[in-house]
Amino acid sequence: MPLLAALMARFAAQQPFKDLGIAACLHITAETAMLVRLLQAGGAAVALAASNPLSTQDDIAAALADRYGIAVYARAGVDRKGYYRHIELALNQAQPDFVIDDGGDLVETLHTRAAALLPGVKGGCESTATGVIRLRRMAAEGALAFPVIAASDTATKRMVDNTCGTGQSAIDGILRATNTLLAGKTVVVAGFGSSGRGVAEYARGFGAQVIVTEVDPVRGLDASLRGFRVLPMAQAAPIGEIFITATGSVDVIGADHLAVMRDGAILANAGHFDAEIDVRALAALALAVYPGVRPHVDAYDLGDGRTLLLLAEGRVVNLVAAEGHPPEVMDLAFGLEALALAWLAGNTDKLPAGVHEVPAGIDAEAASLMLATTGTSIDTLTPAQLAYRESWRIGS
Amino acid sequence: MPLLAALMARFAAQQPFKDLGIAACLHITAETAMLVRLLQAGGAAVALAASNPLSTQDDIAAALADRYGIAVYARAGVDRKGYYRHIELALNQAQPDFVIDDGGDLVETLHTRAAALLPGVKGGCESTATGVIRLRRMAAEGALAFPVIAASDTATKRMVDNTCGTGQSAIDGILRATNTLLAGKTVVVAGFGSSGRGVAEYARGFGAQVIVTEVDPVRGLDASLRGFRVLPMAQAAPIGEIFITATGSVDVIGADHLAVMRDGAILANAGHFDAEIDVRALAALALAVYPGVRPHVDAYDLGDGRTLLLLAEGRVVNLVAAEGHPPEVMDLAFGLEALALAWLAGNTDKLPAGVHEVPAGIDAEAASLMLATTGTSIDTLTPAQLAYRESWRIGS
Amino acid sequence: MPLLAALMARFAAQQPFKDLGIAACLHITAETAMLVRLLQAGGAAVALAASNPLSTQDDIAAALADRYGIAVYARAGVDRKGYYRHIELALNQAQPDFVIDDGGDLVETLHTRAAALLPGVKGGCESTATGVIRLRRMAAEGALAFPVIAASDTATKRMVDNTCGTGQSAIDGILRATNTLLAGKTVVVAGFGSSGRGVAEYARGFGAQVIVTEVDPVRGLDASLRGFRVLPMAQAAPIGEIFITATGSVDVIGADHLAVMRDGAILANAGHFDAEIDVRALAALALAVYPGVRPHVDAYDLGDGRTLLLLAEGRVVNLVAAEGHPPEVMDLAFGLEALALAWLAGNTDKLPAGVHEVPAGIDAEAASLMLATTGTSIDTLTPAQLAYRESWRIGS
Amino acid sequence: MPLLAALMARFAAQQPFKDLGIAACLHITAETAMLVRLLQAGGAAVALAASNPLSTQDDIAAALADRYGIAVYARAGVDRKGYYRHIELALNQAQPDFVIDDGGDLVETLHTRAAALLPGVKGGCESTATGVIRLRRMAAEGALAFPVIAASDTATKRMVDNTCGTGQSAIDGILRATNTLLAGKTVVVAGFGSSGRGVAEYARGFGAQVIVTEVDPVRGLDASLRGFRVLPMAQAAPIGEIFITATGSVDVIGADHLAVMRDGAILANAGHFDAEIDVRALAALALAVYPGVRPHVDAYDLGDGRTLLLLAEGRVVNLVAAEGHPPEVMDLAFGLEALALAWLAGNTDKLPAGVHEVPAGIDAEAASLMLATTGTSIDTLTPAQLAYRESWRIGS
Repeated sequence: MPLLAALMARFAAQQPFKDLGIAACLHITAETAMLVRLLQAGGAAVALAASNPLSTQDDIAAALADRYGIAVYARAGVDRKGYYRHIELALNQAQPDFVIDDGGDLVETLHTRAAALLPGVKGGCESTATGVIRLRRMAAEGALAFPVIAASDTATKRMVDNTCGTGQSAIDGILRATNTLLAGKTVVVAGFGSSGRGVAEYARGFGAQVIVTEVDPVRGLDASLRGFRVLPMAQAAPIGEIFITATGSVDVIGADHLAVMRDGAILANAGHFDAEIDVRALAALALAVYPGVRPHVDAYDLGDGRTLLLLAEGRVVNLVAAEGHPPEVMDLAFGLEALALAWLAGNTDKLPAGVHEVPAGIDAEAASLMLATTGTSIDTLTPAQLAYRESWRIGS
Repeated sequence: MPLLAALMARFAAQQPFKDLGIAACLHITAETAMLVRLLQAGGAAVALAASNPLSTQDDIAAALADRYGIAVYARAGVDRKGYYRHIELALNQAQPDFVIDDGGDLVETLHTRAAALLPGVKGGCESTATGVIRLRRMAAEGALAFPVIAASDTATKRMVDNTCGTGQSAIDGILRATNTLLAGKTVVVAGFGSSGRGVAEYARGFGAQVIVTEVDPVRGLDASLRGFRVLPMAQAAPIGEIFITATGSVDVIGADHLAVMRDGAILANAGHFDAEIDVRALAALALAVYPGVRPHVDAYDLGDGRTLLLLAEGRVVNLVAAEGHPPEVMDLAFGLEALALAWLAGNTDKLPAGVHEVPAGIDAEAASLMLATTGTSIDTLTPAQLAYRESWRIGS
Repeated sequence: MPLLAALMARFAAQQPFKDLGIAACLHITAETAMLVRLLQAGGAAVALAASNPLSTQDDIAAALADRYGIAVYARAGVDRKGYYRHIELALNQAQPDFVIDDGGDLVETLHTRAAALLPGVKGGCESTATGVIRLRRMAAEGALAFPVIAASDTATKRMVDNTCGTGQSAIDGILRATNTLLAGKTVVVAGFGSSGRGVAEYARGFGAQVIVTEVDPVRGLDASLRGFRVLPMAQAAPIGEIFITATGSVDVIGADHLAVMRDGAILANAGHFDAEIDVRALAALALAVYPGVRPHVDAYDLGDGRTLLLLAEGRVVNLVAAEGHPPEVMDLAFGLEALALAWLAGNTDKLPAGVHEVPAGIDAEAASLMLATTGTSIDTLTPAQLAYRESWRIGS
Repeated sequence: MPLLAALMARFAAQQPFKDLGIAACLHITAETAMLVRLLQAGGAAVALAASNPLSTQDDIAAALADRYGIAVYARAGVDRKGYYRHIELALNQAQPDFVIDDGGDLVETLHTRAAALLPGVKGGCESTATGVIRLRRMAAEGALAFPVIAASDTATKRMVDNTCGTGQSAIDGILRATNTLLAGKTVVVAGFGSSGRGVAEYARGFGAQVIVTEVDPVRGLDASLRGFRVLPMAQAAPIGEIFITATGSVDVIGADHLAVMRDGAILANAGHFDAEIDVRALAALALAVYPGVRPHVDAYDLGDGRTLLLLAEGRVVNLVAAEGHPPEVMDLAFGLEALALAWLAGNTDKLPAGVHEVPAGIDAEAASLMLATTGTSIDTLTPAQLAYRESWRIGS
């Protein structure tokens, strides 16, 4: 995680969190350990709880506690009551000035069972889209007591996470599951958002003939202008050999589409939820199902000489059949979060209570650090160029 | 112009401008004639003045007047006084409910010399970025009396105009000027905004090895993640064989860069203003200049065995050495403007006085129409999918 | 294996091997079973021995014998003596008119220990490059008694097997081994033959910045004209982040290159032999080796803050870390072999003893069948076009 | 012409043509002048005649004679008799040891009217495919008295000339003729040989959705595996927006195809002869023809609301509407020819009378020089690698 490593040196020198308490609620993994040590290196006293007991790696938790003196409250497989107890313990231990959350449970606890600590909290970061939704609802009801930066969605993160991360790992998952040759195959990508675009371009990069389906004309035009064939799914269904959904919608591949597909068609979902392919309709259509003809491949025999191959039971193929995002994605995501928190620590008076986007300058800084990890440097504006740009802005 | 043609049928049927007066100030060209006829077909009484007397094609003006009964006030080469007189005449003739402007002169006239007409004006459209800047300044001073939609910048227009239009015509201009082979050449593209990205991808599409320079790390990262080599200009200067600027900044290629370039390096600017390549520095560096070694190619002999080739005197190579934007771009731009104006006519109470972006739905409609011109259709959300999206939004 | 399936119907109807004996020496796998059944469907009496006792799947062997009545002489793990004994038994059983070999052992046996059968043999096919080399040597010494078609190398097979198959599976192997993000990474591909080109294009297709090294200027120029940066390895070594060799040569990445590489550089070989990366030099350079930091990843700590990651111990990453070629490649290879043998059966008088290339028409037929498997059809020359082509040839 | 310039220095030093007479019959252009000066620099006494009186640039001819002392026999517009007289004069002047021809007229003259000079001639080069055909016929009849190297067709020349040169200039010609936007357009490329592949890839590189038609299944499969959609022309005809032929065949776009095309379809030919689009069928189909609606664009009104646009009257669009090949192509072609002739001069005993291919080593040398013109260098085999390759060959 070279981006976090670069920040480590910087934070150690600059001490952005000097004398501050930070309570964090995160998946306890090796990557999280890096983030927590980074906060500590920046001067923070960190207390850590698990955001999901199933993902806790106990050895990591132990190492953080033993080797780095972090207060860790987490144990794999702890029950619901223990889970919330751990969050409370972390909060009480940290007496937090700032918080990092992953899903909203810590912030919720802070506003209810640990409300006594609220007055000390100056701000926080939320890591996930789901958590942001919860917090926005709280904010809309006037219930959110401090500013939270939504670190889950920035221009940089969208590129690295959705386009590159999802694009690569979706193709990776399909190859691991099927070992099929992409060159010359007709691949149908449903959805041309930031994820779908990555999937489509990478499939084309392996020699596939890619068809894109969309419901949004601006995205459809974008796909078309990039040289992709754009069709309604009803027209794509009978000609596709591999289908990959990345829409965020439901039943994108439905009964009518399944009914006309070619023998051997492969169905994969790269969207978050397993609702994009109508698996129940597929089951209803099939005469017989042969699960696990290869790992993560179920064969649905339609009884008319055609068999459709469903990958990962319609769940996100990137995670189920491959390893999810490459580590570079987590490196960027945690780096962005650390930068946002450091900025917040130095600008506590800038933001009112509520949910806020990552400041553009912070996102640019994350991009800059990521470029540096591959040894890439860019230009800086000269004074004359800065003046020209200012004059333009003044002009406007 | 198939998009305008499609709108013609629609507007003739729907009469969005029925009984309305429209005053327009535009370049008098064949494309403009199509737009004006479209407004007329939609029910408007249109009066037209030229937005620049140099671009007026008198035969077009005459045809609009004679054949279509449009009130046209324009003559090629008219002087400044006559120019503003024409605008006033058009305004008085139209008694406008709505206006279309290209640069802001009509709106300015309306707020000063023709202010008597102001109370009748319900809204307008501005076609250019420059005009939008003027209008924003007026609005900031509280001087703008009605809502104006800035039709110059939408997601769709950025794709079609900047990325595709500029991308294609910049390469086209370089090929016409030099006839050089791109395959295997090192092409340096300065700037990876929506224009620079088009230039870079199209140069790569012709087999060039493309280097991108940027000052914005998010754009620099974008270029890098798309497989472009990203370098500071100081490092790119001595290895590039063709340089194309598309930054919107000044002196992107300056004296220090010129001093280290390879013999035979080609310099072209695809940005709006001719300030991106420091032509004066180049002239100062040169021992001798041989203008017009080919049309639009000046050879600067540096006196040390190296000669640099400046295209189009550093002005925008797309327009000077090629034909500027393909007609599809103007078709989309005018279609967008017509759609925006029709929307405004039906929603006069929706927008306060000021400068407004094109509503997203209108931009989507333009994209949809452009897709249709190539025979492309897309999906529509099913009721279940609509409900799912709504539930999500409610959730958030 | 849709190509073999299509041939099955054709051969069943046409009976190209009616009343003929065929002795085959092949890896006993599910794919081989399809080929053998195809020959049988075409009228042949087939006897089968294993070309390598380690790859024999006993259940497949049993099924071929029990269900399809094929004479199979093979058992997993049989010793060397048993191995050759099996080949002799298969030959004696088949009393072959034709043979299929995979490595040359059957043909060698036929010319020595089973020479009594030689007079009946009218021709054969060899599946591997290694076998072809042996047979060419036999032919050069005048020792090869019948015509053998070298089915291992045709234009079609080179495209499908080397460019697409190796290209895809090499990237696949690297992703499975490392899960690293390719976008934005500098990937160095050594060799731009038919395999290296696939690797380079697919890496670029995933957003990598690809550098190609070559020793052949025609291939180097080819890479350059396709937009790849071409450098000597000594210049590529210090800037690459991922290195992939596909040259067929030795020590392409040697001690001098390893010494200057960046920390974290990944080394993978996609060539047949494990000699392309100088693993001994790497071991000598390293202070410590941490094998298996991930499956198929060994970390070589150079002791100066740099660690290099060697994949698959320098052996072919496609096979070791992924699954080797996609099934489409084997489908094409076996289809080509079956077509070549059928042609030979109908044209025994056309070829003298010796090693021969696959006739161009047969290769075209295989390409045609492979196109058909994806539902693709192409044009046929009209009589007028045929006449035009003929006149041209006559002209020449 | 940097490749020729590089050779100039080498030949001046090595004097490959020392004391030799060379008679050349070529188009008298600025590029030819460079070639002739190169031969002279290499020690030759050159006499030059025109290979076509229409292409002679008299000022170039004069400059070669006056400034460089070359014997030039050429004048623009000379009649047929004068044309052949010039060739004879050049031959007599040169008393040639070697000849360079462009179409075969000089070689034919040498074997007939100037046969007295034949005994002195040790070899030659032919520049064109047409000339090679004539010479092959002579050789087949036993009439060719010396070895001629066919410099018109090598692996390197095919890449540079057909794929890159034709690919780029075909697109360039279409853009100059129509200024149409390629992004999002359906472009049909007929033929996927070395030229068609370039056209198809470059059209895709500009955002077009490319369909390929072929009659050769191996080429069709190649296109398919590179991600192109492959269709019979009958299916492509009704969906294409731009058609580009590059087949070398006739009537590739015939009456049946024209009858079903979309309104506004653009028809362009990038093949050598104007027989690929059936222009007579198009004329027969049209109700009216509007020639020159733009330069090199004729509009064929089919009378049913559809108009087809024929570019360059069906002649090669690269030459008619653009400038033909980029100068890099001629640089490579002449460099290849000069290298071949120099090799021949040093190896007169190696080749028997007849037509011969360019030796592979000479083609590699040309590729190497072309790489050097862009500053690119490649690796050389180490002694160990050379030994490994030799052992392999010995093995085989």
